[in-house]
Amino acid sequence: MRQNNHGKVYLVGAGPGDPDLLTVKAKRLLTQCDALVYDALIPQEFLKYTPDSCRHFFVGKRRGNHSLDQKQINKFLVEISKDHTSVVRLKGGDPFLFGRGSEEAEWLIKHNIQVEVVPGITAGMAAPTYMGIPLTHRETASSVTFVTGHEGKDKKHSSVKWRALAHASDGMSFTWVCTIFITLLMSL
Amino acid sequence: MRQNNHGKVYLVGAGPGDPDLLTVKAKRLLTQCDALVYDALIPQEFLKYTPDSCRHFFVGKRRGNHSLDQKQINKFLVEISKDHTSVVRLKGGDPFLFGRGSEEAEWLIKHNIQVEVVPGITAGMAAPTYMGIPLTHRETASSVTFVTGHEGKDKKHSSVKWRALAHASDGMSFTWVCTIFITLLMSL
Repeated sequence: MRQNNHGKVYLVGAGPGDPDLLTVKAKRLLTQCDALVYDALIPQEFLKYTPDSCRHFFVGKRRGNHSLDQKQINKFLVEISKDHTSVVRLKGGDPFLFGRGSEEAEWLIKHNIQVEVVPGITAGMAAPTYMGIPLTHRETASSVTFVTGHEGKDKKHSSVKWRALAHASDGMSFTWVCTIFITLLMSL
Repeated sequence: MRQNNHGKVYLVGAGPGDPDLLTVKAKRLLTQCDALVYDALIPQEFLKYTPDSCRHFFVGKRRGNHSLDQKQINKFLVEISKDHTSVVRLKGGDPFLFGRGSEEAEWLIKHNIQVEVVPGITAGMAAPTYMGIPLTHRETASSVTFVTGHEGKDKKHSSVKWRALAHASDGMSFTWVCTIFITLLMSL
């Protein structure tokens, strides 16, 4: 695929909020980027890892109070990559687990922008661990299901099959509950 | 709970095999421990992070060729914590997702040993990401199920409800397939 002169965009998972649970790669990319695009779930102290010259852009979304909607964020990432060499798009948890990272990656690839996805620890796993709850156990739970708390607003009907899920998997983790828990824990 | 004089045991997730996907905390604990207990999925280069004085113990399990079985590993962790202050039990992926971390934690707590679980990135998430496959997408996958490839050998019947799972969740990730993929990728 023909590449243009845009910088590279890293879709980086910030993990569940604890700076100690950032990956080595995420932390290194933060110290080297010249643009940081972050959302509402990112702790303020993560912003300090970036160089002084790095530009920060908040594109946070909270229910009913979106600074930019998803389409605008996608377009913004393309724009910002024109003037920067290394753009870190920092997302709470893992970019490919309910992180809309897939939509941003699709859009960037479509516009011939180099993209790299850096996995992070999802709050759906870390929060139960912090509470001492294993998601699986050889004797009691051989599978676990992660379910979103916010489906796409353009969907006419929910695609989550609650009744079927209740009979299928031994374990279930609700990421929005876990994210709230971790956020509260980190603010103590 | 009354603590004894044993050292502390950290059940640490090593992530999917890429040293860059270790967490900051996992790497720091490795540089500070005086005993490291690790299994077959841990890349050799992770062992180099430990101090020269740190003792290494391999307790790897491969199908049909277990150096120690799970009960022996549990007992070994108690023994090793008597003579060491900081024991890192390093496990591939996340300790609480098909990692038998729950069984080790239970055993250690029962024996009044201090335990801390440090989450890691599971291969079930990272491998699809490396292949460019998002596990969820607002338009097509609102949930994802992780299913073990090896159920407890003492079980009389499988507890995985394959038929129900096939109808319940939009997405599914098979951790043993993902672990093999990541291991192959890292060996290239």
